[in-house]
Amino acid sequence: MQFPLSTDWMIPMLVNGIHRKTVEFNDGRLTLVNQPLLPHRFETVSFTDYREVAKAITNMVVRGAPAIGAAAAYALALAENEGADLSEAATLLKSARPTAQDLFSSVDSVLKAVDTGKSAADAADEISAAYESACKNIGELGAGLITEGMVVNTHCNAGWLATVDWGTATAPMYVAKRRGVGFSVIVDETRPRCQGSRITAFELAGEGIDHAVIADNAAGHLMARGNIDLVIVGSDRIAANGDIANKIGTYTSALAAYENGIPFYVAAPLATIDPECASGETIPIEMRNGDEVACMFGADIRTGEMRTIRIAPEASNIYNPAFDVTPARFITAIITETGIFKPENILDALNRIIDG
Amino acid sequence: MQFPLSTDWMIPMLVNGIHRKTVEFNDGRLTLVNQPLLPHRFETVSFTDYREVAKAITNMVVRGAPAIGAAAAYALALAENEGADLSEAATLLKSARPTAQDLFSSVDSVLKAVDTGKSAADAADEISAAYESACKNIGELGAGLITEGMVVNTHCNAGWLATVDWGTATAPMYVAKRRGVGFSVIVDETRPRCQGSRITAFELAGEGIDHAVIADNAAGHLMARGNIDLVIVGSDRIAANGDIANKIGTYTSALAAYENGIPFYVAAPLATIDPECASGETIPIEMRNGDEVACMFGADIRTGEMRTIRIAPEASNIYNPAFDVTPARFITAIITETGIFKPENILDALNRIIDG
Repeated sequence: MQFPLSTDWMIPMLVNGIHRKTVEFNDGRLTLVNQPLLPHRFETVSFTDYREVAKAITNMVVRGAPAIGAAAAYALALAENEGADLSEAATLLKSARPTAQDLFSSVDSVLKAVDTGKSAADAADEISAAYESACKNIGELGAGLITEGMVVNTHCNAGWLATVDWGTATAPMYVAKRRGVGFSVIVDETRPRCQGSRITAFELAGEGIDHAVIADNAAGHLMARGNIDLVIVGSDRIAANGDIANKIGTYTSALAAYENGIPFYVAAPLATIDPECASGETIPIEMRNGDEVACMFGADIRTGEMRTIRIAPEASNIYNPAFDVTPARFITAIITETGIFKPENILDALNRIIDG
Repeated sequence: MQFPLSTDWMIPMLVNGIHRKTVEFNDGRLTLVNQPLLPHRFETVSFTDYREVAKAITNMVVRGAPAIGAAAAYALALAENEGADLSEAATLLKSARPTAQDLFSSVDSVLKAVDTGKSAADAADEISAAYESACKNIGELGAGLITEGMVVNTHCNAGWLATVDWGTATAPMYVAKRRGVGFSVIVDETRPRCQGSRITAFELAGEGIDHAVIADNAAGHLMARGNIDLVIVGSDRIAANGDIANKIGTYTSALAAYENGIPFYVAAPLATIDPECASGETIPIEMRNGDEVACMFGADIRTGEMRTIRIAPEASNIYNPAFDVTPARFITAIITETGIFKPENILDALNRIIDG
């Protein structure tokens, strides 16, 4: 039942001794890691119908802003293969989740490339390769923040399973580990879907990085007691003023870090920046089904079977916003593939690229 | 499977049409509500052996500082019935949980009463009655804070199931409801043991109070968006300087309330004050088993059977502190049975009683 965890971490992102990517495209098939089954089972699902990919994005079979971006790009390649209307496919894909900027930016990139005569598949390959290289660069740039003996805290999963490879918030950890730095990681479990305890913990165990999972409620306590030195999180959308949207709970994590003088970094590729969005207040916040809070999905401790159990009374209402906004003033800096920027200067990162 | 929820809320703390208390003592038997089964099953467990009561406190069959205090007092009555050494029994009971001040104060009260010739059973009856009346008074005093249309937020369960009757943080809600005030409650689920979604939600549904459960991570977001008007929580120990220990996550809730200008009240009987404890830094924080975070217990959505499922990888460490400390500066005031005090004046509440 329990998936054997690799201790060989010299080759990136190993699962059972094989280098796996979150999003792979071969012979006209898009293959994604089936993330709700983690950490209990490592299984992939393959797609040839872009409509099914849109559903997989909504149901979070694939999740994490960059992974969603790459999957949606390849979904347009599937649409191209079947001769579907790309603009209709793009509309469906963009409606799959409302907050992740990468979903919109990569779908638009593919459409633009197709307009210039490129195939959607080639454009998607380029986007996917760009994500890989962006994440690796984020890792190289961010690794210097992690020094010997540090305790790093992260929220949700901004790991390789949220991107194509390496991750965003985790990339500095994976590079620091390869440089021989000894550190440990405190992982917020990240209710309601527990991407921290299910996915980030799975990744860190696979990479042989010392870590402990906590209830989200414990992060502030550990910060107040001086047990956390650095926080790195990912982002689903970065506004022009440096406010960021990320998984629900990021805001209180940033507040507690700020209160206790702990550096709070956001790691994200440039594709996550939405220059049209003036501030965090205008970022749409996805509301998800209350069953994500009322119920939990996991492996029966006696039989190993995957089961859903109910926690809350059926008579209770549930309110389940999936993201929150962290104001720029609580963010130490944003780690991108081209440099580490103060949040108020984040548009400089984009302009530098546009200017060449 | 689903316990039928009462809509008759004119008689206090109804379950299935009958007024129930959390802790009851009749004919030499102590009867407690078996809380881990809530909200799915309402069952009681009876005890005649004080050692089993100590285990029930450790395993959180009974939980909540005042309920623990009353249960431990009656456990000494059981020890008296069997002719056991009361001082040995007191030592065992006090070791059952390390943070709740009420456990220590009520065990000491019984021993002191026995020294003056009173029976332990009579002393326990007095303690239990004092908790009931304290909670009712907290409700009467605190109800004025809740006005028409308000959204009140609470963390964990400081409800009637955490006391003998009425609750501490919930008592103002139950009194306000009886006074005809229309308000609603946002309930933090309160990982890892989900006393919010399991127990507070069950209580509020039973009382017919409009409420919604959220992941703890969503509280800060709702505060930042102006969706919460007032926070009321309980406490397990109040230090002499007005710092309070309460369920893990209370600290970040208080931080977010403070940041957003939302009044943050603590409701607790005087028995929760520990005048020997100078500040929150010296309050011992209970560390509990990591399985509380790695696993979840609830009702199978298909069969209704109670099951435990695993969420986190077995390879991951877990760190599970059960409480945190909220500094006095983040607390608007503390609601006790004798008045509402600024945290820095909390010792006045005790001195007023001692002076008569």
